[in-house]
Amino acid sequence: MKDFDLSLYLVTDRSLSLNRPLEYVVEEAVKGGVTMVQLREKDCSSKEFYELAVRLKICLKPYKIPLIINDRLDIALACDAEGLHIGQEDIPCAIARKLFGKHKIIGLSVENVQDAIDANKLDVDYIGISPVFNTSTKTDTAQALGLDGIRKITQISMFPSVGIGGINTGNAREIIQAGADGISVVSAIMSAKEPLQAASQLSEIITLSKKNIDI
Amino acid sequence: MKDFDLSLYLVTDRSLSLNRPLEYVVEEAVKGGVTMVQLREKDCSSKEFYELAVRLKICLKPYKIPLIINDRLDIALACDAEGLHIGQEDIPCAIARKLFGKHKIIGLSVENVQDAIDANKLDVDYIGISPVFNTSTKTDTAQALGLDGIRKITQISMFPSVGIGGINTGNAREIIQAGADGISVVSAIMSAKEPLQAASQLSEIITLSKKNIDI
Repeated sequence: MKDFDLSLYLVTDRSLSLNRPLEYVVEEAVKGGVTMVQLREKDCSSKEFYELAVRLKICLKPYKIPLIINDRLDIALACDAEGLHIGQEDIPCAIARKLFGKHKIIGLSVENVQDAIDANKLDVDYIGISPVFNTSTKTDTAQALGLDGIRKITQISMFPSVGIGGINTGNAREIIQAGADGISVVSAIMSAKEPLQAASQLSEIITLSKKNIDI
Repeated sequence: MKDFDLSLYLVTDRSLSLNRPLEYVVEEAVKGGVTMVQLREKDCSSKEFYELAVRLKICLKPYKIPLIINDRLDIALACDAEGLHIGQEDIPCAIARKLFGKHKIIGLSVENVQDAIDANKLDVDYIGISPVFNTSTKTDTAQALGLDGIRKITQISMFPSVGIGGINTGNAREIIQAGADGISVVSAIMSAKEPLQAASQLSEIITLSKKNIDI
């Protein structure tokens, strides 16, 4: 059994960090209760991506929080990340698994029910259900799935799942109640004035939602 | 000894192929005398890059022409390419070598004399001297090195070298005479009306230049 907890999954975006160093925001977020961190960088050189990944790995190690690299298997291999997150337009899952190894975490984005059905045949460890709601953080996404989409996909999928896209303290509870094992956020933490507090608040909502306790 | 010949090294750019399929242009170029092919794709998804690499690998195999992948070690690993070409802003060479294996070809771009001195300490198989002349093909390049730069760098470097940037039939001979083992071209072949003929013409110039025969 691979040791990871999807409950509160932070996806990075340096452009949303209010000019604070990424390591600072990530560490604060982890102190606040983030359980997984995905480094997603689209507009930087491979060298910069690699160096950032190494720095985040060092920052996360004491907390035993897995570092997941978005898309770039080479960066994941180079920094010995715990995981790789791939989308439908990334390297095929079977190739990624072969090169990355069976003990590593591989997550796959699913954007509709068919993707979730197809994913059941793949050797992935979790699925990211995306986008739950419309979001300004990521512009190349498919149509928003809504809570109904979460319900359908989590019923069909044999994998643990995390919802992503437009999730915040106002709707986190609904995502968990709809069947997701966790929520994934970008701006709700990256752009929070106090990332620790923002993470802590989201973490509490998730814990309570999982216990089926009304807030 | 790794088996590769830098003499006429084609670097791809789909945007310059006059809407012809990349495989068509590459195969014609190889028939004309191209000795190495580098797939360089910056604006496509990892999936598309991977699929293109697999198609080029199949296309090049009968001709025993090595396929070199630009920057993306994951794509190189995924398609089992013969080589990887990295720039100064890509994954560090030592990491790439460790992950890619000692029998694979690794090329490194050097943009000045200091880069060439530093490269001598690295486990690379060739250097790309870039840019020799100014070029519109690649916009993120350093200052043009000129023939004098080629002379200085090839004298200092312990590796075989290929010049890149603004090279065509008009100046190919000078590059070889300045000390490079080969020339690398993009538009001179990618945008040629007849890629086979363009490659053949360049190939002949290189052969004659290497024999020190005036054209």
